[in-house]
Amino acid sequence: MKFCSQCGNPVTQLIPQGDNRLRYVCGACEFVHYQNPNIVAGCLPVWGDRVLLCRRAIEPRRGYWTLPAGFMENGETLEQAASRETEEEACARVRQLALYTLFDLPHISQVHVFFRAELADLDFAVGEESLEVRLFEQSEIPWSQLAFPTVNRTLECYFADRLGQHYPVRNEFLPPLHGLAQS
Amino acid sequence: MKFCSQCGNPVTQLIPQGDNRLRYVCGACEFVHYQNPNIVAGCLPVWGDRVLLCRRAIEPRRGYWTLPAGFMENGETLEQAASRETEEEACARVRQLALYTLFDLPHISQVHVFFRAELADLDFAVGEESLEVRLFEQSEIPWSQLAFPTVNRTLECYFADRLGQHYPVRNEFLPPLHGLAQS
Repeated sequence: MKFCSQCGNPVTQLIPQGDNRLRYVCGACEFVHYQNPNIVAGCLPVWGDRVLLCRRAIEPRRGYWTLPAGFMENGETLEQAASRETEEEACARVRQLALYTLFDLPHISQVHVFFRAELADLDFAVGEESLEVRLFEQSEIPWSQLAFPTVNRTLECYFADRLGQHYPVRNEFLPPLHGLAQS
Repeated sequence: MKFCSQCGNPVTQLIPQGDNRLRYVCGACEFVHYQNPNIVAGCLPVWGDRVLLCRRAIEPRRGYWTLPAGFMENGETLEQAASRETEEEACARVRQLALYTLFDLPHISQVHVFFRAELADLDFAVGEESLEVRLFEQSEIPWSQLAFPTVNRTLECYFADRLGQHYPVRNEFLPPLHGLAQS
């Protein structure tokens, strides 16, 4: 950030009075520009004993497999964001969404939220941001070809929890994995 | 938003290619400015059978009672944000944080997240943004003088769940309450 979104003059970093953090503040109109973490919302769509994954057609991590997920938009609920991303990436409709995993990724200022969900039907298809969309049994999951650590971890939790048919909501901190793109 | 934060030229609202929403886009450098929901994180600090509330010294809802909470900052985890806000508003230290309520407030593009927590000690005090900080038994809660619907709802859930000593994580949508400031 270099310029004020309100008046177009240059901003500088300083700690405003009554605050304790560096903010971008306009030198002309004194507007304070706060920057805050973003939410990524997604689904773990289930059909019987299989789960739906999408192979990414876009960077980062093009060619790797992911759960359908993306940035939550203004005016949405978490469930709406997760459903919309599933529709966009896998042309799939989901129902019975249940909050499942929340991951803190402070190194990239993101929170990732996944819902368990039932696929409503098998009429899914390859969305614009995907190369391939298909159902996987547990034994077929391409563990080394998953796009993001939060996808690995959500699937790990799911297959572990499925043994006891008990799915507690989990909030976990995921540290950076050096050498692996995560955002 | 009127000007580009990257180059200072005017922005206009348009739907970028491959997108399906209006974004602020720079007419000169074509930078796309995304705007996304903010997270408010807070605690429900418990000491025995009492809970800690703060009376707000700042707008909105000055003079009304709240659970300590505020905007999550870049570089934080949800727990760190909730703990920091509790320290800032009530000079209180908490431990054993457990994720409890998540509220979708799409009309103001916010997600509110509260953790149940134990007060570590009774050395709390009035923080800069508070007029008063004290412990309340259930029968003393000033229900009509609470600052925000998500505070009411978190306290309602807590006293109900406490009867059975079972505290499921809840994700709820809260619609706007007309005539009551909520942000």
